[in-house]
Amino acid sequence: MKTHPLKLVTIIGEAVLADRLLREIRKLGAKGHTLTTVEGQGSRGVRASEWEGKNVKIETLVSEEVADAILHVLSEHYFANFAVVAYVHDVGVVRGEKYV
Amino acid sequence: MKTHPLKLVTIIGEAVLADRLLREIRKLGAKGHTLTTVEGQGSRGVRASEWEGKNVKIETLVSEEVADAILHVLSEHYFANFAVVAYVHDVGVVRGEKYV
Amino acid sequence: MKTHPLKLVTIIGEAVLADRLLREIRKLGAKGHTLTTVEGQGSRGVRASEWEGKNVKIETLVSEEVADAILHVLSEHYFANFAVVAYVHDVGVVRGEKYV
Repeated sequence: MKTHPLKLVTIIGEAVLADRLLREIRKLGAKGHTLTTVEGQGSRGVRASEWEGKNVKIETLVSEEVADAILHVLSEHYFANFAVVAYVHDVGVVRGEKYV
Repeated sequence: MKTHPLKLVTIIGEAVLADRLLREIRKLGAKGHTLTTVEGQGSRGVRASEWEGKNVKIETLVSEEVADAILHVLSEHYFANFAVVAYVHDVGVVRGEKYV
Repeated sequence: MKTHPLKLVTIIGEAVLADRLLREIRKLGAKGHTLTTVEGQGSRGVRASEWEGKNVKIETLVSEEVADAILHVLSEHYFANFAVVAYVHDVGVVRGEKYV
């Protein structure tokens, strides 16, 4: 089965950030997402105590370029001020050419 | 720690499809699954407006052959009619030989 | 965008095990986690009937060494007695050097 290589970008942050993060990724080229309510405890040192309870996990399938743009914006504009976690990995997507 | 290489197949679709999708993957050889309730917004062009709200994410650890079969059936029988997303990636599974 | 290579360890088990599993991974070096409530049906042969209903999915971003330690402990102390699934894959993490 031929799949299309894409990046799955995962962003985990406080639930209150969800709408803002979703607007951000859309603006940067994400065509869709899934959002999961999760519980979490942070690994960000001094922020750990602030970050227990409901968080959201946002996942989006994007091209490498869009993944780069999303991670860059998160790193520049979110990591200093919010307990955000972001990571990326390669996936093979059925009919993935529609996502780019 | 020695792990067993398997494919993690992820399928995201409307909640109403869950039982049907689970029967489908079982029939094709999946031995287990997890199902997560997620919210989503589609990236499938004309279908986007139909696909907001509760969806399910189904994940199953399978051999490459079963992964291929699942993605093939989804592509042939679901993608034309339903807002389904499916992707696959490699994972290393503890005692994964039991899954195949 | 430069990311840091880490292992994402995923553990799925009965909800009643959550606190115990979280203590275990902390002790072994995990600095954070997310916990998602999922439904599942097991792929562990004779245990399948015992393992339907609410489970938890615990995810943690760790170094290769910590991933190995977690999977080893799960394999040695949990797989014989509990319906636990555990797998690992590579991810690229924004500012991931903070997790190790």
